[in-house]
Amino acid sequence: MSAYTIGLDFGTLSARGLLADVSGGRVLAQHEFVYPHGVMEQRLPDGTLLPAGWALHHPGDYLDALDAIIPELLRQSGVPTQQVIGIGTDATGSTVLTLTKEGVPLCFLEAYRSRPHAWARLWKQQTAQDQADRITRLAQERGEHWLMDYGSRISATWMLPKALETLEEDPALYREAALFAEASDWLVWQLTGQFTRNECTAAYKALYERGRGYPEPDFLRALHPQLGDFYHDKLAGEIQPLFGRAGGLTRPMAKRLGLQPGTAVAPGILDAHICAAGAGMSGPGEMLSILGTSGCHLLLGETYHQLPGICGLAKDCILPGYYGYEAGQVCFGDHLAWLVDTIAPRDCVQEAQALGISAHEALSQKAARMKPGQCGLLALDWWNGNRSILIDSRLSGVLLGLGLHTKAEDIYRALLEGLAFGARLIVRLFDRQGLHVRSVRATGGISRKNPLAMQILADVLQLPVRVPLIQHGAAMGSAILAAVAAGAQAGGYETTQQAISRMAPNACQAYAPNREHAAVYDSLFAEYERLHDAFGRGHDPVLKRLMDLRDDVLIRLHTDEEQP
Amino acid sequence: MSAYTIGLDFGTLSARGLLADVSGGRVLAQHEFVYPHGVMEQRLPDGTLLPAGWALHHPGDYLDALDAIIPELLRQSGVPTQQVIGIGTDATGSTVLTLTKEGVPLCFLEAYRSRPHAWARLWKQQTAQDQADRITRLAQERGEHWLMDYGSRISATWMLPKALETLEEDPALYREAALFAEASDWLVWQLTGQFTRNECTAAYKALYERGRGYPEPDFLRALHPQLGDFYHDKLAGEIQPLFGRAGGLTRPMAKRLGLQPGTAVAPGILDAHICAAGAGMSGPGEMLSILGTSGCHLLLGETYHQLPGICGLAKDCILPGYYGYEAGQVCFGDHLAWLVDTIAPRDCVQEAQALGISAHEALSQKAARMKPGQCGLLALDWWNGNRSILIDSRLSGVLLGLGLHTKAEDIYRALLEGLAFGARLIVRLFDRQGLHVRSVRATGGISRKNPLAMQILADVLQLPVRVPLIQHGAAMGSAILAAVAAGAQAGGYETTQQAISRMAPNACQAYAPNREHAAVYDSLFAEYERLHDAFGRGHDPVLKRLMDLRDDVLIRLHTDEEQP
Repeated sequence: MSAYTIGLDFGTLSARGLLADVSGGRVLAQHEFVYPHGVMEQRLPDGTLLPAGWALHHPGDYLDALDAIIPELLRQSGVPTQQVIGIGTDATGSTVLTLTKEGVPLCFLEAYRSRPHAWARLWKQQTAQDQADRITRLAQERGEHWLMDYGSRISATWMLPKALETLEEDPALYREAALFAEASDWLVWQLTGQFTRNECTAAYKALYERGRGYPEPDFLRALHPQLGDFYHDKLAGEIQPLFGRAGGLTRPMAKRLGLQPGTAVAPGILDAHICAAGAGMSGPGEMLSILGTSGCHLLLGETYHQLPGICGLAKDCILPGYYGYEAGQVCFGDHLAWLVDTIAPRDCVQEAQALGISAHEALSQKAARMKPGQCGLLALDWWNGNRSILIDSRLSGVLLGLGLHTKAEDIYRALLEGLAFGARLIVRLFDRQGLHVRSVRATGGISRKNPLAMQILADVLQLPVRVPLIQHGAAMGSAILAAVAAGAQAGGYETTQQAISRMAPNACQAYAPNREHAAVYDSLFAEYERLHDAFGRGHDPVLKRLMDLRDDVLIRLHTDEEQP
Repeated sequence: MSAYTIGLDFGTLSARGLLADVSGGRVLAQHEFVYPHGVMEQRLPDGTLLPAGWALHHPGDYLDALDAIIPELLRQSGVPTQQVIGIGTDATGSTVLTLTKEGVPLCFLEAYRSRPHAWARLWKQQTAQDQADRITRLAQERGEHWLMDYGSRISATWMLPKALETLEEDPALYREAALFAEASDWLVWQLTGQFTRNECTAAYKALYERGRGYPEPDFLRALHPQLGDFYHDKLAGEIQPLFGRAGGLTRPMAKRLGLQPGTAVAPGILDAHICAAGAGMSGPGEMLSILGTSGCHLLLGETYHQLPGICGLAKDCILPGYYGYEAGQVCFGDHLAWLVDTIAPRDCVQEAQALGISAHEALSQKAARMKPGQCGLLALDWWNGNRSILIDSRLSGVLLGLGLHTKAEDIYRALLEGLAFGARLIVRLFDRQGLHVRSVRATGGISRKNPLAMQILADVLQLPVRVPLIQHGAAMGSAILAAVAAGAQAGGYETTQQAISRMAPNACQAYAPNREHAAVYDSLFAEYERLHDAFGRGHDPVLKRLMDLRDDVLIRLHTDEEQP
């Protein structure tokens, strides 16, 4: 009897699901569900205005996604429910929910609907920068060893800065929240009825390390007198290794989704990290670049290295048996979407419409006709801060070389080049620590939709780039994890490596580096690096001063608005 | 019997003319003629491709403009030709024509139609930067005193760099050109049949000074062995003071235009400088800012000062009796046009159409709702290089502070602020030399069309800005000069001051500086100044390197294209 698994990937704007054949990885059905509330950045559903920089999800959208996707996968594929042996889920992280002790999101309660901290704060919200800076400083002062595993700097997007932000901005809500949880763990709780935390988000986003555990209560109390019990109380919950079974589908949830009760459910995992399995990553030497709205670069190593400037490091959280090093670029496709939405001129949009292509494709095609260096521009790709090397959300984008001749496609190309230069700094950081990168395996929307982005990445890195021919790499990874969760006895697999080798795709689109472009990109990269250090390492604080000025104005405007 | 004069202003994209009542300055008729060939930047009329950076006029368009405008002014006003006592013309400069000894532009001859140097090279063409740099260096080495009157640096746009460029790039054409002439002088030649050169363009654009004359042949020979006779031969022609009569209208031209033979014709003059008369500038202390596609700032002084970084200095060439100091911003409205044409997004354009306003107005209205500092951006306004302070065409625009929240109107506002910061550096330069600026009189298209630009200028400078309520300030200035050329006996005026006081407009739109904005703009200006020096004075040569890279690519592409 054939066996099938379902993989679900909860992204930023939508959730994607697929149903795959366990024996060969063939995708029999796939479906995407766009969140009805999208990313809430201006207002809460009841109209409450949000401060600048907030980005929230409605957790109800996740449940709606389950209801919409799973029955649709069964309908499309015609697979009998008995043959669905497992479900795997991955989600964005840190996407943080505040919950009652029963697991009800506070935003579901009438009393908290108007409180921003009651909703799911997305991975891309950077408002807790001040808290993150204080955590970093305190960890430095106290010589906390774990700080080095996070590149010596704590990101504003992670669990602890978000918790401290809640405590300081809405202490009543902080007290009321019995639990803080990652979206990925909350989802598994809804499916299995049991609350556990997956080791991947705990390690990469909540300062957890197997053996050591979380940071000490002493450290937390030094941050804030009322934070001492945070990990013990509000982050309670067993931490579960990946590559196993989190639990079985509850009876009510099975009925609701049209599956069998007890179907194996894999632990939650970060959407980026599961791509390693889904894209068929095999081992060290090949960097996995997940290029969607943001960019994430993962590299496996057999030994432990401390790398200043990376985002995270954990063992057994990407593939079993390896240290997984994570670095990131906080916005990748977001840059391009910004360009198309904000400054794509009318004639470009009209031209694209006439050709039946998107404005993205039109700009990309024009940009592809240029030679390296021809656009005359250089971009520092910090439209939403910097996640790796500098780890600083209070940086912003820079464009140099603008002229009256500059067109939107020039800026488009400069952004692609800037992103590739950012990736090159990350590759160099790995290389210098002996973690040699010999090729890149790219996945995510940009890798498939934007061949120019991939060619520029290959040319700037002077490394081959391969793009696996699979549409939903994360969802496929989750389907693979589901087969591991089900186990060999139920028709799945004993080991993750087996599951990957049978289910992950082999076919790739390959981009070879153009050697003729190396010299120009070396020159441009040298300029990029110099400016990266000048503006990013504090020699020239202009970007921070501009942000301070802007914040001051926004705070004053907000205060004026609130006064009668 | 009432007397009337005609003022003609030959701009970059069109010529504007008006017919004014000499006794009170009332405008009875006005007309604009858009040049059929516009600015030729890609190809010559016969299809010959132009190198990057070229910007040419077709001199035939100037004659077509005369034919179109003057009869239309007579028709509109109904004024009998006997009562038209004078014509004045002004034009852009340095707009350089190469001529036969009879004054025929070489581009009118079949043999030279395909040669770029045979056409009228516009003021904004910066391709002779290398030549300008060599002229500057040589003048420094030889300790030429006149260099100081041009801010210690020669602009790539002026007569001598253009001549040297011609000699080096098309030596046969250089030899064939009996004369090099400013468009303004060529126009007066067409009207009067006599060739003279006006002192204003000679002084500000061709290194001439009353008393001293042009630079020495020795100097020219040291630049290039065949350049020694340039001033003597190809720049021959009597230099005529402004504020007098250049000649009388020839019989054929009078017939062609429908005027009386012998009608007084004023000497040509630079379009910016004539605005002093046209806008009613009275004397020292008030800076005249002519803000169109480019920006020009003029200040009068009773004494002689050497100012490093200004563009030019001459006596009796703005108003009689004063030293006129000139500084400039090489693109002003050009920046905004770039933004609207290149990156105004479709929804902004659609919104503007729905409201029945231009995209400029729509962006400006949105930008006006922001507070200083709110857009979070800072712009170095060098989209076409820098004309004053740095005098360097190999600089380019910089935008800092970009974020995913950045909208086109934010960039619009940042450009306006950047332009105002550029103007503030110029005001400070004047102030530090004891030429105190107490207020600004602004004219030109931007001053009337863009109230936000004027308010930001007032706020950044913390000076009152007044905009005379006249549509064509330059053409009015030329009409005033025409009344002086005609003289009191013919119904005009004896002195320029008399003519200005009677004919120039009194009514102004006034912008008072907002004191609350001073502090934020002081902070932003400090950042602007630091980056201006870092990128502009050679500490960080990134902008030049980007331009070099781009030039290399373009040269290679051009070479590839030319090969079979």
